Amino acid sequence: MKIMILLFDNYTALDIVGPYEVLNKLPNSEIYLVGTEKRAYKDPYGLKIFANSSIDEISEADILLIPGGPGIDKLLKNKEVLDWIRKIDATTKWTVSVCSGSLLLAQTGLLDGKNCTTHWRRKDQLRKFNVTVKDERYIQDGKYITSAGVSAGIDMALYLASKIAGDQVAMMFQLAIEYDPKPPFDCGSPDKVPKEILDRFK
Amino acid sequence: MKIMILLFDNYTALDIVGPYEVLNKLPNSEIYLVGTEKRAYKDPYGLKIFANSSIDEISEADILLIPGGPGIDKLLKNKEVLDWIRKIDATTKWTVSVCSGSLLLAQTGLLDGKNCTTHWRRKDQLRKFNVTVKDERYIQDGKYITSAGVSAGIDMALYLASKIAGDQVAMMFQLAIEYDPKPPFDCGSPDKVPKEILDRFK
Repeated sequence: MKIMILLFDNYTALDIVGPYEVLNKLPNSEIYLVGTEKRAYKDPYGLKIFANSSIDEISEADILLIPGGPGIDKLLKNKEVLDWIRKIDATTKWTVSVCSGSLLLAQTGLLDGKNCTTHWRRKDQLRKFNVTVKDERYIQDGKYITSAGVSAGIDMALYLASKIAGDQVAMMFQLAIEYDPKPPFDCGSPDKVPKEILDRFK
Repeated sequence: MKIMILLFDNYTALDIVGPYEVLNKLPNSEIYLVGTEKRAYKDPYGLKIFANSSIDEISEADILLIPGGPGIDKLLKNKEVLDWIRKIDATTKWTVSVCSGSLLLAQTGLLDGKNCTTHWRRKDQLRKFNVTVKDERYIQDGKYITSAGVSAGIDMALYLASKIAGDQVAMMFQLAIEYDPKPPFDCGSPDKVPKEILDRFK
């Protein structure tokens, strides 16, 4: 099973590594970090992850994963990347995104007419496409699964693992990463947080 | 605020990037990925993260974070790394670990007599040290905070952020990474999983 994760400058690291830590456990999986060039890519805080493949080397995938991050906006105008996503998607069993990665998928037209989601701060931007934006942690529409912001990629990847390898295997993965979350606060979505905290994001 | 994350071959990527994605948001924070050498380090599945500092360049920190992973066992005998951890710890406000990273902290002697935790599969190994092993998602004892397996680093980092910058700031961080977890299964700890799944880990 060939899994391609798109890498670009100013990604959000947890968008990548959350699902990565689940999907790398799929039997016979090979994960490729794929950039426009084969080089290191930085997140906004200086973390450097290396792309071990360039997009011109990759022509097919079983799973294509598009992470998000501030760098996604620049990619929305990158014809080479948009064309590559369309080409790979024509070969995939699953095409998935985390956080603002769904904007890039929407820009390719692949989400046209579909249910999808994104980071709560990006929903107005996603609504400008020909899609139906849902308030879900992750949402499947056919072979497409999009997820909410950043940490939602972990939940999405476990769901995807269950679709590919069955519930028992996905449960093993969840136990392997000891994903029994106990956040110190109950404020991880905009409808749960006090207004004064939400206002700080304006 | 200088935050040092120890990097080594065969780390678990989410042990690093989970807390990283929280702590990078602390005001005036600088995060250093620190290896014995300044080079790329691989996880067991081929992800390559670059160490932008080597341990001989770093002599102090506000926060020292030790991630876990299969590579931790080899480090338990690495005098250079153990000495470096003791030296940096003498300067820190907080010394924290994720997953099996607590074994390395225990090996330095810094956890002697303290309450701590680790990944559920590593608890017997941790009990061999002069420590009290607790069944907690994360546990603070003085300036030391250790956490359970892999994904627990996110919860631990949010707690740490609240201790450093206050609850309101930590709540902002939690909302920023949309950490409103909805795992597809309720099986993230060994006491919650069906026995036949737990048996597969033997």
